[in-house]
Order: sequence, then structure tokens, then C-alpha cells
Amino acid sequence: MQIQWKPDKSKSDYIQDQIIQYFKAKISSGSWPVGTRLPSERKLAEQFEVNRSTISHVLDELKARGIMASYGSKGTYVFNNTWSLMQQPDWNRHIESSLYKPNHKMIQQINKYEFQEGIIRLGTGELSPDLFPKDIMKALLIEASESVLALGYEENLGQLKLREAISQHLTTLNIKASPDQILITSGALQALHLISIGLLQFGSNVYVESPSYLKSLYTFQSAGMRLQGIPMGNEGLDVDQLRSIYKRKEGNLLYTMPTFHNPTGIVMSDENRLKLMELVNAYQIPVIEDDAYRALWLDTPPANPLKSLDPNGHIIYVGTLSKTFAPGIRVGWVTGPQTVIERLGDLKMQLDYGTSSLSQFVALKWFEHGYHELYGADLRAKLLDRRNHMVAALKRHMSPYGKWEVPTGGFYIWFVLNKKINSSVLFERALKNNILLNMGHIYDFKENHALRLSYAYASKSEIDQGIEIISRLIQAL
Amino acid sequence: MQIQWKPDKSKSDYIQDQIIQYFKAKISSGSWPVGTRLPSERKLAEQFEVNRSTISHVLDELKARGIMASYGSKGTYVFNNTWSLMQQPDWNRHIESSLYKPNHKMIQQINKYEFQEGIIRLGTGELSPDLFPKDIMKALLIEASESVLALGYEENLGQLKLREAISQHLTTLNIKASPDQILITSGALQALHLISIGLLQFGSNVYVESPSYLKSLYTFQSAGMRLQGIPMGNEGLDVDQLRSIYKRKEGNLLYTMPTFHNPTGIVMSDENRLKLMELVNAYQIPVIEDDAYRALWLDTPPANPLKSLDPNGHIIYVGTLSKTFAPGIRVGWVTGPQTVIERLGDLKMQLDYGTSSLSQFVALKWFEHGYHELYGADLRAKLLDRRNHMVAALKRHMSPYGKWEVPTGGFYIWFVLNKKINSSVLFERALKNNILLNMGHIYDFKENHALRLSYAYASKSEIDQGIEIISRLIQAL
Ligand SMILES: Cc1ncc(COP(=O)(O)O)c(C=O)c1O
Ligand SMILES: Cc1ncc(COP(=O)(O)O)c(C=O)c1O
Repeated sequence: MQIQWKPDKSKSDYIQDQIIQYFKAKISSGSWPVGTRLPSERKLAEQFEVNRSTISHVLDELKARGIMASYGSKGTYVFNNTWSLMQQPDWNRHIESSLYKPNHKMIQQINKYEFQEGIIRLGTGELSPDLFPKDIMKALLIEASESVLALGYEENLGQLKLREAISQHLTTLNIKASPDQILITSGALQALHLISIGLLQFGSNVYVESPSYLKSLYTFQSAGMRLQGIPMGNEGLDVDQLRSIYKRKEGNLLYTMPTFHNPTGIVMSDENRLKLMELVNAYQIPVIEDDAYRALWLDTPPANPLKSLDPNGHIIYVGTLSKTFAPGIRVGWVTGPQTVIERLGDLKMQLDYGTSSLSQFVALKWFEHGYHELYGADLRAKLLDRRNHMVAALKRHMSPYGKWEVPTGGFYIWFVLNKKINSSVLFERALKNNILLNMGHIYDFKENHALRLSYAYASKSEIDQGIEIISRLIQAL
Repeated sequence: MQIQWKPDKSKSDYIQDQIIQYFKAKISSGSWPVGTRLPSERKLAEQFEVNRSTISHVLDELKARGIMASYGSKGTYVFNNTWSLMQQPDWNRHIESSLYKPNHKMIQQINKYEFQEGIIRLGTGELSPDLFPKDIMKALLIEASESVLALGYEENLGQLKLREAISQHLTTLNIKASPDQILITSGALQALHLISIGLLQFGSNVYVESPSYLKSLYTFQSAGMRLQGIPMGNEGLDVDQLRSIYKRKEGNLLYTMPTFHNPTGIVMSDENRLKLMELVNAYQIPVIEDDAYRALWLDTPPANPLKSLDPNGHIIYVGTLSKTFAPGIRVGWVTGPQTVIERLGDLKMQLDYGTSSLSQFVALKWFEHGYHELYGADLRAKLLDRRNHMVAALKRHMSPYGKWEVPTGGFYIWFVLNKKINSSVLFERALKNNILLNMGHIYDFKENHALRLSYAYASKSEIDQGIEIISRLIQAL
């Protein structure tokens, strides 16, 4: 191989770069195909009139990128001429070696298909646009426009007035939490993320109901925590099982949804709540109580939160406006011992400097004007009707294929199939029919043949149509 | 020691818990003071009519909590009767062993004092409430109230229309980014957090200017990355230094603020930009370009972003409305290769399910109605006036004590003291005089005696008053 070129010494700083560029140009233009042997380092140094160490440095760099390789003593040769290797940082390698896990494939698909036109969303965990309180929102935004806020960076824990309103709201649930024990978050999800980075460690055990919404989220798993499933029955999680598998270690804790559990809809019985709190106190188990669906009782109001039975500060209690008002406003809250809340608030300053002030203002007025109760009542009536509608559709079409309990609140019916089916096949076939299903296995620790159905999102006619189609698909399988 | 009590076998599941509760009651009531020796395991087993293994288990549990201890063969005794040990999970141990670092102490203090009445904020990185575009916000909120949005969970990357508007905006900076290469974030800060968990790894090197705003944030450090400072001069970061210290490894990257750098106000020269891009291309260095202050030029518009010189996708470009409109709306954006944006968007679904829809709507209309340009012009005039005012005050009072360059944009004057001072003492004395200072060392890698002054927040009279007091405090030191 003959090399004529020399680096331009007049821009002396750049010699190495010039040589790299020269090599890359030769390789990418095809002049030096893969396999081409390079002259020895000594020869190259002579030709380029540079130190041998400069040449070594350049060759090391090209080897590190996978463009060149060497056969021991036999010198260096061209190993790869992929354009992208030579031009772009290899972002995929960055991604693969980085800290967090990508979401579950099926969750990614669900996230995507939810925004496809004409799809019937039979499992979506969100209120239908029909159930959005348009007039209230309009009034709140007009009020906001009149108060014309100066929207600076917010206080650490969120707007004081909103924290006061939430403190007030919590007293109605028999929870005593002063405003400085409350942190405003961007949805309940962010509270969980903050807990994962602010209280737990890599390898911590998070005990959760099996199945659990948390299994479908990767918030904890991504940060390196292990989820441990605890079986549950109609009374909620099996406290004896928890006792027997729980390991005390800082960073281990229980995550539970005692009221209108996602995905099963189960409400923990009063007796089981007391039994759980007895264990929590005896073993000093730290607990996250996720109470996202509380306001949505359909038959009778549920028992007060576990947090109301927690004078000793074992429980971190999480709430949200997503299920009762609107997810897009992204307002949630978390309360617990002050040390914990301060810690989470400090970390929020490393994540996003606080929740949107517009959203906080709207949330404040939502509470101040009593809409949380007023609209809650309205919504419950509408959801009750939808629940009954879906139950009727299930009775008509699905009785031969599985079982379900009628939920007394929340959004979900957990439909357990009688026979094993191939989850992915059902999911795909439903999609072909423009139906999006939340398959049960994304929430579970063991194989399951269940569906998380939601009566909150699809319209009644979509529910009828969707359930009928699904029943036919299941029959065919 | 005589024990009369026995566990109640009729609730057989709870024997262990009953024994633990009994022991705790004895200790916390003071009946068994610290040092009390317990009967042997055998005797306890006899008395309680349980297996010895049950007793071992209970004692192990109490030892693990630090309540009991044992002297080898000499049996078990009461070691600690602290009420909190016995009653509460030890949240401090959870916090200390958890993943993230707390913020810098001085940053925590600054975050707190910013919300104290009557304080003069001489270093705050935020527009004064006087500079808030009240009328525009009012109009936008009225428009929002009329569109009465159904606020569902949002698409992965954020509202399509807003991404289109930002794509449009970026073309004015000569950046080509299609809407699916743009992710809406809750401020630029969240983009950084997403990058830290989605592209970098524990131990990654993040090269940054020294000093750098990033040093004062713990977003990267908390996730386990190491910041490496690169000296900078009046032309921006020293590219030769970067070349000589940069180590190629997935997860390593450069974070830079070429335009109106925080905290120094420096703008990278055109020549240096080209030199940097040559190195970036030659070494395939992944780069985060943080362009938070771009719109705020005071003399002449700055050079286009580095990103406009990046056909090969080395640069992840970050922008925000915080510095030009309002931080409280929490809207930022990040653009880069599509693989990267999809990755960050996927992870955002593990953090907070998307940025407030209200904020996104307001941001959309801000761009659509051209306020970004219109109000930008207004704001620049006002900031120019404030800058000149602060420079005049510095000339009057501070010339003997240090040096500064007059910034051509952004918020900050980097005031370098002539003599070494004790930073914390100056900070504290200023606070006593109701002045909040952002001390330079929180941004730096080496000792420094500098102040980050901001002409954006304090009123003109506060600037006069504040600078005068500070000059006296410095003289006294
Ligand atoms: C049990 C539970 N917790 C938390 C969330 C997250 O809600 P948010 O929108 O408040 O982040 C959901 C949403 O589906 C949920 O079902
Ligand atoms: C350079 C720089 N980047 C990012 C941010 C964070 O801004 P945001 O409010 O958009 O999160 C700031 C705020 O001070 C900043 O100065």
C-alpha cells in the first residue's frame, strides 16, 4: 500500500484528527476495503512525519471503535467499514449499557396503539373523554386567567395552598398530615419514582400483591429493585404469606393497593387491614399505600386508608387526581413522615424542579370549590352505569369462557379465563379487530390467563361490540 | 426475672408477633430497663409453651432492630429502649442507603431562602415577576378555557402539535428535527435526568465546562456519573484540553452550554465551535448541548447552535421555556437521533407519564401565536436595561474587589474576586442582611472566589442596595 498524503503541520494541534479523518475517508470511500493491511506503525510514522506514539494513539482509537483490528504481531488491518460506525456515536450501545430498563414490549405497544384512530380500548386505565368535567375545567381556567399567576420556580414541596387543601382533604379520610408532610408530584407515578431513588437501593425487595399494577410499570425494576409477589384472595393480600417471606433490610418495603386494587378491583377486608397493620407494626415494615381509585366507590364508601391506622409513620400514602379528574393535569401527592417527605422533595429538585404551576393552580381550585366531592358523586353514578353495562355484556357473551367478580369501585374487571390461552395470539387477533386488550400476564408473577377489562374508557356501544368480538376470538382459540 | 404472661394460642398465627409485642411493651414501659438479662431460650420456650425455634426467631428479629443484644454464651439482654427504634421503621437508614445523593447543602439552603419574604435574590436564575408576560398568559388561558381540552394521558413524546411547533421553531435555528425526533419534557432539567438514566451508566464520565451549572445540580452525580471539568476561556471550553482528557466509552459524553453559559455568561466563539465540532466528529463524541438562554441575546444574535452543524447525530439538543416565558409552566424539549428520543420517551413513561397537558397547550399557543419571537424582543430590551443597571452598580461599588466581563446575553455576571475569601462566611453574612447569593464554588471544580450575579430577578433598586451591601461585606472580610 502506497500512501502519498501527509498531515498539514501548519495546524499542528490537529495532527491526530487529520490522520483519523484520512483513514476514515479511505475506508468509507472503499479505497481500503475490509481486510486491507496497513503499513507498520514505524512506516506510518515515517510517512506522516510524526512520532510513533501518535500513530499508536490513532490506531488504538480506531480499534476501540471497531473500525480496525490487529492480528497480534501481524499488524493492523481494516475490520469494518460500516458507515454508521464511522460517523455516529453508537447510541444503541449507550442505551444498552445504561441504567434503566426499557418498558415491557406489550406495554410499549399498548402505549402506541392507544393513540391509533378507531381503536376500541377495552382495558385502558383512564376515564373516557365523555367523563371529563368540561364545564368545571372551563370555569377553573377562566379563574386561572383572572388570577394571572407569575409562574416562577415553585417551593420544594409544591404550592403551599395546594398542600393545605390536600391536608384538609386527607382529614376527611382520617389521615393527619400537615402541609409540610405533603409533597406535590407529577402524578402518583412520580411519587413511586421518587421513592425508588430516594428510599430504596439496588437489590431491595419490594413486596407487592400478585397480580399488581406495579409489575407492569418498570419504575422499580429499572432502578434495580426486585418485586416479590404475594398471593391475594378476595380479602386482599395474604398477610400470613407476607409474614413468612418478608425480609427486614433497609430498602425493603411493601407496596399495596388495599382499595380497588389494580388490576383485580379487590378491596381489602376490614379484618385483613387490621391483621396487616398488626404485622406492619410488629415487624416495622415500611409500606407504600397507593390509593389512586379511592373516590370511585360504586356501592358503599370503602374503609378508610391504612394510613389512618398508622400513628407510628410506617406508611407512605400516595394519591392522585388522575382517576377522578384528569390524568393530563399530572397532579398527585404523597404524605408520610416528614424526613421522608423532605427527602423526596429534595430529590424532586434533581428531576424536574416541581410540578407545573398551572396544574397546581387548577388542582387547588378543584379542591377549594369542593369539586372533588361534587364531581366525585357525579362520576360515581356514571361509572356505576358503565360497570353494570359491562357486567351485562360479559354475562351475555363471556360466561362460558371465564369468571369474574363484580367490582365495587375503581375501573377494572379482572376476567379469568377457564382455559389456558396464548396471550400474545389473543392480543394480536384483538388488535386486528381494532380492539386493544390489557392482557393479565403483564401484571402477574406467574402464568395467568386473565384480562384486565376497564369500563372507564370505551363507550357503551364499544363495550358491547368489543366484548362480543373478544368472545368470538376466545372461542376460536 | 419472672414472666407470668403466655401468648394466646387461640390466634395461633400470631404467636411470634404476640411475643415481640410483649417484649416491646415491657421494654418501652421501663419494666425492663437497658441491661436487663432475659431468661435463656429454653426457659422462655417453656414459659411461652412454644418451640425454641420460635424464640430464636423472635430474638433474632429484636437483635436485628438493635433492641436486644447478646453476650456470646451469656444470653440476651436489653440493649436499647429508644422509642423510635421500637416503633418506626428507621427511615434515615433507608434514606442513607438509597440510590440518590441529596442536593448540595448550599443549594438546599438557597432553595429554601428563595421563598423567604423580603429577601433580595442577587443570583437567582429566573425572571423577575415583573418580567412575567401577564397579558399573554391571560389570553392563553382564556383560549385554553375555550378549547376545553379532554385531558387524557398523552402520547409518549408529548402533544404532536406542540412537537410540530417546536420542530418549526428549530428550523429558525437551522436545526432539522422532525416531530418524532422531539420529546417534550418537564423543563430542560428533566431532559438531563432522562439522559442520565437512559443513556449513561454508573461511573460514566460527563465532561463539562469548569465552572458549570451542572456541577450545582446533582442529577448526574446522583445517578453515579462523574463530572470532569474542562477549563474554559473567553472563547468557551478548551477543545485541546477536551481532546487530551476525553476517554471513549459508551456512556461518556460532553455536556456544554456554548451560548450564554451558566454561570459565566460566555459565548463560544465561531472558530472554537468549528474546532469543537471537528473533534466531536473525529472522536465521535456524544454531546448534550444545553441552549436554555439562546433567546436572551442583548447585543447581537448569537451563532446558531452546534446542533445546526451536526448532520451525523452526535448532539442531543436541549431547550426550555423557563428562561424566556416562565419556569412554572415546566416545558422543555430535547431533540436528537430518533433512537435516542424514543428511548428517552419510553423512560418518561416510567417517571411521570408525560408533561402536564395544560402546560403543553399553553406552550403550543405561545409558539403558534408567535409570542416566542414577539415577547422575546420585549424581554431582551428589558433585560438589556437591567444588565446595564447592574454593570453600573458594579462599577460604582465593586471595582476595587474583583473583575467581570459584561455578558452579551442570558442572566448572569460572573464576578471574580481579587482575593481569596471564605465563601460560607460571605454567604452567611449576606443572608443576615437579607441578601441571597449564589456563591461561585457551587459551580466549580476547583476553589474559586466568584459570585454568580443575576440581573434577571431582583428589581433595580434591590440591585443597587444589594450590590452596595455586598461591597461593604467584602471589604470587611
Ligand atoms: C394504582 C395506580 N397507581 C398509580 C397510577 C399512576 O397514576 P398517575 O396518573 O397519578 O401517575 C395508576 C395509573 O394507572 C394506578 O392505577
Ligand atoms: C443551563 C440551564 N439548563 C437547564 C436549566 C433547567 O431549566 P428548566 O427550568 O427548563 O428545567 C437551567 C435553569 O437554571 C439552566 O440554567
